[in-house]
Amino acid sequence: MVKTLLAACALVALALGVAPVAWAAPEPPPLSEQTEECLGCHESDTPGIVADWKASRHARMTPQAALALPERERRMSVADVPAPLRTVAVGCFECHGQRAEAHADSYEHNEFRIHTVVSPNDCRTCHPVEAEQYAGSKKAYAVGNLEQNPVYSTLVETVTKGVRGKHGPPPPAALDVNRSRSCFGCHGTRVEMRGLKTVVSAGGDEVQVPVLTRWPNQGVGRINPDGSRGACTACHPRHSFSIEVARSPHTCAQCHMEPDVPAWNVYAESKHGNIFQARGNGWDWSAVPWVVGRDFTAPTCAACHNSLLTTEDGTVVAERTHDFGARLWVRIFGLIYSHPQPERGNTWILRNADGQPLPTTFGGKPAAEGLLSPAGQQERRATMKRVCQACHGTSWAEGHLAQLDETLLETDAAVAAATRLMQQAWARKLADPANPFDEPLERIWVQHWLFNANSVRYAAAMGGPSYAAFEHGWWELSGNLAELHEAVEGR
Amino acid sequence: MVKTLLAACALVALALGVAPVAWAAPEPPPLSEQTEECLGCHESDTPGIVADWKASRHARMTPQAALALPERERRMSVADVPAPLRTVAVGCFECHGQRAEAHADSYEHNEFRIHTVVSPNDCRTCHPVEAEQYAGSKKAYAVGNLEQNPVYSTLVETVTKGVRGKHGPPPPAALDVNRSRSCFGCHGTRVEMRGLKTVVSAGGDEVQVPVLTRWPNQGVGRINPDGSRGACTACHPRHSFSIEVARSPHTCAQCHMEPDVPAWNVYAESKHGNIFQARGNGWDWSAVPWVVGRDFTAPTCAACHNSLLTTEDGTVVAERTHDFGARLWVRIFGLIYSHPQPERGNTWILRNADGQPLPTTFGGKPAAEGLLSPAGQQERRATMKRVCQACHGTSWAEGHLAQLDETLLETDAAVAAATRLMQQAWARKLADPANPFDEPLERIWVQHWLFNANSVRYAAAMGGPSYAAFEHGWWELSGNLAELHEAVEGR
Amino acid sequence: MVKTLLAACALVALALGVAPVAWAAPEPPPLSEQTEECLGCHESDTPGIVADWKASRHARMTPQAALALPERERRMSVADVPAPLRTVAVGCFECHGQRAEAHADSYEHNEFRIHTVVSPNDCRTCHPVEAEQYAGSKKAYAVGNLEQNPVYSTLVETVTKGVRGKHGPPPPAALDVNRSRSCFGCHGTRVEMRGLKTVVSAGGDEVQVPVLTRWPNQGVGRINPDGSRGACTACHPRHSFSIEVARSPHTCAQCHMEPDVPAWNVYAESKHGNIFQARGNGWDWSAVPWVVGRDFTAPTCAACHNSLLTTEDGTVVAERTHDFGARLWVRIFGLIYSHPQPERGNTWILRNADGQPLPTTFGGKPAAEGLLSPAGQQERRATMKRVCQACHGTSWAEGHLAQLDETLLETDAAVAAATRLMQQAWARKLADPANPFDEPLERIWVQHWLFNANSVRYAAAMGGPSYAAFEHGWWELSGNLAELHEAVEGR
Repeated sequence: MVKTLLAACALVALALGVAPVAWAAPEPPPLSEQTEECLGCHESDTPGIVADWKASRHARMTPQAALALPERERRMSVADVPAPLRTVAVGCFECHGQRAEAHADSYEHNEFRIHTVVSPNDCRTCHPVEAEQYAGSKKAYAVGNLEQNPVYSTLVETVTKGVRGKHGPPPPAALDVNRSRSCFGCHGTRVEMRGLKTVVSAGGDEVQVPVLTRWPNQGVGRINPDGSRGACTACHPRHSFSIEVARSPHTCAQCHMEPDVPAWNVYAESKHGNIFQARGNGWDWSAVPWVVGRDFTAPTCAACHNSLLTTEDGTVVAERTHDFGARLWVRIFGLIYSHPQPERGNTWILRNADGQPLPTTFGGKPAAEGLLSPAGQQERRATMKRVCQACHGTSWAEGHLAQLDETLLETDAAVAAATRLMQQAWARKLADPANPFDEPLERIWVQHWLFNANSVRYAAAMGGPSYAAFEHGWWELSGNLAELHEAVEGR
Repeated sequence: MVKTLLAACALVALALGVAPVAWAAPEPPPLSEQTEECLGCHESDTPGIVADWKASRHARMTPQAALALPERERRMSVADVPAPLRTVAVGCFECHGQRAEAHADSYEHNEFRIHTVVSPNDCRTCHPVEAEQYAGSKKAYAVGNLEQNPVYSTLVETVTKGVRGKHGPPPPAALDVNRSRSCFGCHGTRVEMRGLKTVVSAGGDEVQVPVLTRWPNQGVGRINPDGSRGACTACHPRHSFSIEVARSPHTCAQCHMEPDVPAWNVYAESKHGNIFQARGNGWDWSAVPWVVGRDFTAPTCAACHNSLLTTEDGTVVAERTHDFGARLWVRIFGLIYSHPQPERGNTWILRNADGQPLPTTFGGKPAAEGLLSPAGQQERRATMKRVCQACHGTSWAEGHLAQLDETLLETDAAVAAATRLMQQAWARKLADPANPFDEPLERIWVQHWLFNANSVRYAAAMGGPSYAAFEHGWWELSGNLAELHEAVEGR
Repeated sequence: MVKTLLAACALVALALGVAPVAWAAPEPPPLSEQTEECLGCHESDTPGIVADWKASRHARMTPQAALALPERERRMSVADVPAPLRTVAVGCFECHGQRAEAHADSYEHNEFRIHTVVSPNDCRTCHPVEAEQYAGSKKAYAVGNLEQNPVYSTLVETVTKGVRGKHGPPPPAALDVNRSRSCFGCHGTRVEMRGLKTVVSAGGDEVQVPVLTRWPNQGVGRINPDGSRGACTACHPRHSFSIEVARSPHTCAQCHMEPDVPAWNVYAESKHGNIFQARGNGWDWSAVPWVVGRDFTAPTCAACHNSLLTTEDGTVVAERTHDFGARLWVRIFGLIYSHPQPERGNTWILRNADGQPLPTTFGGKPAAEGLLSPAGQQERRATMKRVCQACHGTSWAEGHLAQLDETLLETDAAVAAATRLMQQAWARKLADPANPFDEPLERIWVQHWLFNANSVRYAAAMGGPSYAAFEHGWWELSGNLAELHEAVEGR
C-alpha cells in the first residue's frame, strides 16, 4: 500500500509535468578545494550568483555521472574530462580558473589565478562539439560581420554617431558606449584587458579587479580576452546555464525582435507562439532529447533551429546543432535581398558582382561565391521540412514552403522597386549617395528593406499574418514606395 | 492513515490548481478500426499530431460518456450522435472520414476515403449549436466581408498589390500569396481542390494527396472545399482542440492585435490583462462551466465575449455563444465611424445613405437598415453589463460604460474632422480620390481611423490608458490632424 | 514510513515551488457582523469580488495573527490595531466602513454608512509606513505634477483636446473623459462626490449609490473623496490585494510602457526579463522577505525598486520602500534632459534658471533647488549598487553604471542638438512657439526627447540593446536630427 502511495505521489508529480529532478544526486557532489574557498566569501558577497549556481546541473552532478548517461541524454559532448574535473561539481574555480595562461584577463585573487570572462573555449573542455559548431556560425562572427564590412559599419556609425554640436564630435569613449549599448549589445563587444584597479567588494574589502573595456556584455559574438568569439551566457544565462532558459523563445527574443529582426514578434503572433504562450508552462523544458508531442506541443525557436528532437520511440527528427543557421537554406534577413545562406559565418568576405562586401548586388544578383549551392540549399531545406513534418502532413509542409518561396520573390521585387527609385533620387541629387543611410529619403529606403521587407518574410516563414499586413509589413512597403515615388516623380 | 495520505496527496494536487484529470477514463476508450489503422502509420510519420491528439479530450472520452455529463458541464451540444461514433474515441477517421460526399477534397488514401480539410460542418455532427452560432457571425463571413465589399477590397489590393516594376505586374499567383499570407491569413482563404499530386510522405512512401489552393490556412472565415465557412482550428488549434487554448487571450491576439485591431495590446495593458499575466497560470482553464472568481480572477477575451460563465452556486452570468459579437452592441472597430453592430455577419450587404457598401456615410450617418436597433443594442449592452457586474459594483460598471460612450463620440468627431480635411484635399486635387487609400496624404487619413481612432476606442472599452495617450492613440490623432491641416491650409 | 511519505509529499510540493499556504489558518478567521451582512447579498450580487477576497490574505488571517509573525516577515507596519479590527478578517466593512466622517463619498447603504472609494488613508490603519512613504513620492503627486505644471498641462491639452470642427469645441465633459481615459488613466483622476442616484443593482434591487466624477479610475495619484492621494489598488488590484500581483512586472507595465516610459519593454528585452519570462512561474512570488536567488533568480521591477530583499541567512540587501524613486539618483525620464531626482514628489514647485517649472532649462542646466545634491545622489546610487551586487561582481556593477552615465551624457547631447535646431525653427518662424507641442515639426522634437532619448536611457539602465538601436532608440534619434536639420537648413 505504501508503495502504491509513493507511486501515486510520483504520478501526481508527473501529471503536473514536473518530474522529480532525476539527475540530481541525493546529495550534491563534492566541491573542489578551490571552489569551496570561493564560496566561503561569495556566498555572502554575491549570494544571487551562488544560489543560481547551486540550483544548476553544474552544481548537482559531476562530469563523471553525466558521462554515464545514455548518449542521447547527455548534455556533454566530450568523451572524457581531465581527472581533476571528473569527480567534483563544476564550480566557481572549474570555470573561472581554467586555462589561466590563455586569458589576458587572468589575475591574482586571494592566491588564486582567475579570470572574469569565462569564454566558449573554457566551456569547450566539456562541450567541444557545441563550441566547434558555434565557432563557425554567423553568431560567432557577429562583431566582425559589422566592423569589418564597410557597408554595415557605415550604417552603425550613421545611427550611433551621437552629437555634440558646437562642442565638436563626441569623444571616442562616448561612441564606444553608444555602440556597446546598442548594436554591439547583441552582436558582442571587444572585451580587452587594460590592467588592474582596486575596488571595494560587496563584502567591504579592497580587492584588485581587471579593468575591462566594454564590459559587461553578453553579445553572441563577443571577442573575449582569450581571443575566442562568443558568449555562451547569451543563451545559457548567468550561473544556472540552464537548457530551459536557452530553449525559451524569450531568450532569442532579446535580439531577434522588431523592427529589424522581428522573429520573436512574428512567432508570438503565430499559431506556434499562440500554443506556446497558452500551454508552455506545462511542457518539459529540460528533457534531453526533446520529444515532439510529449515534452512540447508546439515548436519554439530552439525546436526548429537547434535542439535534438526525437519521437517517443527515440527516432531522431533532427540532430542538435549550435550553428543556428545549420537548418536554414535561405537568408530572409535581407541584405538587402533574400539570398542563399552564406557557407561560412564570416560574411564580410563575400563580394557581389559590383565588388561590394554584400551577398547580393543592389539589383538583387547573388554573389558568385560563398553562398550555398542549390544542392546545399536543398539539403538544409529537407532537414527543416522533416521538422515541420513531425507535426504536419506533407501537403501542409509543402504548401507552406511554396508560399514562403513566393513571398521571398515578392518582397525582393518590392525592394528592387524601391532601390530603383532611390537610385533615381541619387542620380537627380535629391539625396547624396556618399553616405546612403543618413538622409530622410534614404531612411525610408533603409526601413523598406531592413524593417518592412523583413517583416513580411519572417511573417511568411512563421505564419504571422498581422505582421505581414498592417504591423510593419505590406502596409509600410506600399507606403514607402508611395513616398519614394512622390519624392522622385512628384504627384 | 493511508486514506488520509491519499487525501493529502489529492489536496496537494488541488492546492496546486491542477485537478486530476477527472474526465479521463482510467483507460483510453476504444478506437474505431479505421482510426487504429491511421495510427499504424501516422504514429511514426507525424508523431506530433498523434501525441497532441492522444492528450486531447477527443482521444480520452467517448461521445457517449461526454453526453452522460450534467448539461451545464457538457462540451457537446448535440442530443445524441450516430451509433458508430458513440462508443469510440473521436479519432483520425471520425473527423477526416466524415461526409466524404460533401467534400470536394475527398480522396482515396490507403483504401479509405478521407479529406484533408476538416470543416465546421464536420464538427457540427457533435457541436451543432456552436456551428450554427458561428455560421451567422461576422467571423464566418470574414472572406466575403473583404472580397465582396468593393471599398475594402480596394484597400486590400492597394496594400498587397506588390510590384514588378518594368517587368510588368506580378502574376496572379503572387498576388494570391501576398493576400493569403497577410489579410486573408486572418480572414481565411478560399481553399479549392485542384486534383491530386504524388508526394513522398514523411515515412518515405509515395502517396497521392490533394492539390489545395491557398493551403495551409486557418483563418476564421476560410472557405472550405465542402463549401462551409470557417476553421474551428483557428481557436481550437491543431489536434488537441483544447478549450484551454481557445480561452487564452494569446489565441485571439493572433489577429486582434495592433495597429488596426489592438484588442490584445490594450488588454495586455489593462488591469484585467495585468492580473491574467501575473496569476493566470494558477487558474483552471478547462472547467465547464467557467466559474467566476473560482476558476479565474480576471476576465480573458473568452470570459467577456463567449464562455458560459456561472457563479459558484451555478447561477448563470452569461450563456455560451460562438457568435463572438453576440454580447456587443456597438462596433468600435470603426469603418470609419463607430456604429451599431450589424444584425448579420455578412456586412457587405449594408448600404449607407450615399449608396456605398459601408455601415456609415463618410459624414458619419449610420445605414438605415441592417444595423442593430436601439432596443437590440440595449439588450446586448445589458448582457455585457451583467458580465462586468460579476466583479464590479453597479456604479463602477455604469461609470465605465458612460466613459466609453463619450469616447466613441469624441473619436468619431476626430475622424469626422480628418475626413473633412481629406475631402478638401481631394477637392483641391492635393490627392486623387479615384483610389482613396494609396497616396501619402490619404494614408495619414487611413491611419487616423483604422489605427488611431480604433486604439483610443479599444483603450476606452478595456482600460488601456497608455494606448489611448501616446501609444497609437490621442498623440497620433492630434498629429494626423496637424499634418492634414498643414497640407490643406498651410502653416 | 507514513511520516516519511508525508515528508515526501511535502517535498514534492516544495520542489514544485508551491509551498502549502502556511499563513492560512486551518479555518478562515471570524468575520465582523457587518461584513457578514455585506456578504449576505454580495456573494450572489458581485460573486467575483467576494471570491477574489476570500482567497486573499485579508480574508484568511486576522491582524492579530499577522502581528505575531517575526518582524521581517510582516506585511503590516503598524504596531497594533484598534481592538474591533484585531480579531476578525479584514472584510468588506473593515475597509469600506472606515473613517466615514473623512469620506465625502460616504453614504447610507442598508443601514450601514459606507464609501465606495477606499483610499490610502484607510489602508494606513494597518500599513502606516507604506502609506507615509507613498504619500511623499512622485506617484502620489501624479495628478498635480501634470495639472499644476503649465508646461505639462499644455502638452496634455494639446494631445487630448479633441475636435468638434464647425460644431464648436468639445464640451468640458468630453475633455474630461479624453483625459481621464488617457493621461490621467495612469496619473489618476480627481474623484468627486456629486450626490446620490438610484440604480438597479446586480441583484435587481433599487439602491442609492454615489455619483462620482471620473470614476472608475485606479491611477497612482488619484485624488480621493477623502482628500488623500493615490490608489493602492493600482498595484494591489481589486480585492485580493496580493503581493504577488504587485511584484509582477506586468503590473508596472500598465503605465511604464512605450513609447514615453518604455521601462517594461526594455525590461522584457533585457536578460533580467528574459529569465523572468522563462522561469518566473517557478518562483515564490509571495515570500516576505524576498530572498535573492532562492525565491527569484532574476530581478523584477519590485526587486530593484521597492521590495525588502534579503539573502538566505537574513542579511538585508535592501529595505522595503513604497517610494518607488527612493533607490534612484538620476531621473532618466528626461524632461527634457536627464537630471538628479527631485527631492520631493511634487515636482511642479521646481523652477529652472529661466523661471520655467522644469527640472532643467531648455539648454540642459539643472534647477538650483529641489533636486538631489551630489551626496544625496551618491547615497541612493550606493543603495541600488548593493542590489546589483547581490548577483553581480563589483567590476560588472561598476562597468554597467559607468556605461549608463556615459549614455545619459550622450542622449542629453542629442536632445540639446535637437533643441537648438528647434529654437532656430522658432526664430525663423518655421513653427510658432506659442504652443511648442502642436505642429508637425514640434512633434518631431517632442518625440525626440519624450520617446527616443528615453528609450536609449532606459535601454542603458536595464540592458535592452534592440531598444537602444532600432526600436525607438538611436535610429530614431538620428532620424529626428536629420529631419529637423533638413527643415531648418535645407538639404
